[in-house]
Amino acid sequence: MTESPDRPQFEGLTCPVPLPQDRQVVLGHGGGGKMTHGLIERLFYPAFGNPALLVGDDAAVVTPPGPGKLAVSTDTHIVAPLFFPGGDIGRLAVCGTVNDLAMVGARPLWLTAGFVLEEGLELDVLRRVVDSMRAAAEEARVLVIAGDTKVAERGKADGLFINTAGIGWIPEGREVSGARATAGDVVILSGPIGDHGIAVLAARGGLELRVNVASDLAPLNRLVERMLDACPQVHTLRDPTRGGLGTALNEIARQSHVAIHLEEGAIPVRPEVQAACELLGLEPLYVANEGKLVAMVPREASAEVVAAMRELDPGKGAAIIGEVREAPAGRVLMHTSIGGTRVVDVPAGELLPRIC
Amino acid sequence: MTESPDRPQFEGLTCPVPLPQDRQVVLGHGGGGKMTHGLIERLFYPAFGNPALLVGDDAAVVTPPGPGKLAVSTDTHIVAPLFFPGGDIGRLAVCGTVNDLAMVGARPLWLTAGFVLEEGLELDVLRRVVDSMRAAAEEARVLVIAGDTKVAERGKADGLFINTAGIGWIPEGREVSGARATAGDVVILSGPIGDHGIAVLAARGGLELRVNVASDLAPLNRLVERMLDACPQVHTLRDPTRGGLGTALNEIARQSHVAIHLEEGAIPVRPEVQAACELLGLEPLYVANEGKLVAMVPREASAEVVAAMRELDPGKGAAIIGEVREAPAGRVLMHTSIGGTRVVDVPAGELLPRIC
Repeated sequence: MTESPDRPQFEGLTCPVPLPQDRQVVLGHGGGGKMTHGLIERLFYPAFGNPALLVGDDAAVVTPPGPGKLAVSTDTHIVAPLFFPGGDIGRLAVCGTVNDLAMVGARPLWLTAGFVLEEGLELDVLRRVVDSMRAAAEEARVLVIAGDTKVAERGKADGLFINTAGIGWIPEGREVSGARATAGDVVILSGPIGDHGIAVLAARGGLELRVNVASDLAPLNRLVERMLDACPQVHTLRDPTRGGLGTALNEIARQSHVAIHLEEGAIPVRPEVQAACELLGLEPLYVANEGKLVAMVPREASAEVVAAMRELDPGKGAAIIGEVREAPAGRVLMHTSIGGTRVVDVPAGELLPRIC
Repeated sequence: MTESPDRPQFEGLTCPVPLPQDRQVVLGHGGGGKMTHGLIERLFYPAFGNPALLVGDDAAVVTPPGPGKLAVSTDTHIVAPLFFPGGDIGRLAVCGTVNDLAMVGARPLWLTAGFVLEEGLELDVLRRVVDSMRAAAEEARVLVIAGDTKVAERGKADGLFINTAGIGWIPEGREVSGARATAGDVVILSGPIGDHGIAVLAARGGLELRVNVASDLAPLNRLVERMLDACPQVHTLRDPTRGGLGTALNEIARQSHVAIHLEEGAIPVRPEVQAACELLGLEPLYVANEGKLVAMVPREASAEVVAAMRELDPGKGAAIIGEVREAPAGRVLMHTSIGGTRVVDVPAGELLPRIC
């Protein structure tokens, strides 16, 4: 078997089946035979290699760091385009699940990754995405311990979809839930909203939307650890992704049977995002974020929590945006800058398709 | 809000947003707003309802039954067609991951489910698939504790893709791995091979292939428990899915640095499957199974294990098909009925696309 010089995407690795299709994904990459093994060994193992993954069994075997509760979450990512300012589908797939785990107070430990590749996808694109996943996993200190690759025929998928599921460990004594927001709590937001949605929309082109906004996409687990160090009694955490801050707060108001009262002037929105939203007829409250969280914290600890958050990059825009009251239970109300009050409802249908 | 009589798919449940599109998936079902919540509350919660899921947080919180190791696995299912004799994509998504967990000696406990829906999918089709998942989860005694739904535009997916990830608990003392096959072990197969691949292929139509074969699709975790009760020293288990028995045995031979010697006459294949394979130029050894396992077991325990397997439906065709030897390490050899020997290699590229 000779090395072919025209396969730069696998430098230094001998391809076991040197086929001309090797620049693009072909159905054979999903067939479970040598081509699938080649893809795993040349692309996925070098990126994610860790003992649990490399054993090569049908399931990875791992041991939690201690007794107690586990957090489990899953998210499939179908964002279009695959690359956008501030991130890509790979970083999104890692951070999205890491953040969901962190939102119940868990320390994210392990991820699984399930790929659906469209026949014809450039292998170089896949390699860039996998490299980005590796970097994000390192940043969040999680291991990808199990994976799966399927290939759909041309026109039966859209380039690349990635599902990640995650497992985190919840240290003793932590009890963070959307059902624990309590009248008297202060509502803290970690920074300006809407960046992710607007960045992806602008990257899509076709809308003549030229804005200089990058996605806020980031792992939030270290921020959460810092917050829980500052105040172990944090009641609720949620990252307002698809559906935005407005939807996330409505979910919490219903889960906890409380009212959430917001101060419009206190909610940070970048001027570029505000301008883009006005142009497009969008409400920033419903635009997706991928590196922000909202927290319900006892009032007496709130100043300390905000100060702790501001020490870390993803929390440096932290601000108090409202409070939790008893009435009207299950509702989110916005107190506007000019003295009015309006209900913040959940939007009905589609806001921005394929945003995550 | 009035009930509309033309939404029979959600009997007894009031639709919060009665829209004309309610018979089909629309982009709004993936937007994260009211339509997404409606889909979750009307379709997914009634099917999978359990305390961990119903809390509605970003991650489910669960507690393993005891200290020790966990098994983790993931699989995305893109099978075409969605329904085939003996099963459907929903049952496949549950059994596939349950079986991967069982193959390292774990007791499958929890699943996550990530759906990619194509715009225009009939909601009634989704409901049938979800019902089938619920039934399979009950059969396998696992809980679906977390889920995600995304919608891709028409022509950007193919009806319905389902990812499941699973977590199982490995009781103390169990050590089952593809790396533990040992010279002297006996190779046991749980029943005839190739049923799943041929059933799906026949269901696809267009090939003028009329065979009366149903998929073997079934959860294998109870069979594995029975085997481990009979012989706690089972070394290796694997379910030969995509790539078939031939590929699975090659993986094990490499992981364990052993040779696997098979007796051709001992490997059960249904006559209908054999005939279909001959017609299509396929080798049953490489055709997918979804309810079979192969085991490497110390010779002294093998009769007892086979007897135990035959007590349960998925093991009633159990047979000894070969043995593990030292040489040639990493290879699978077939001793044919007429006294010859041939190497069973891993196939190169695509065998049967979209089989799981």
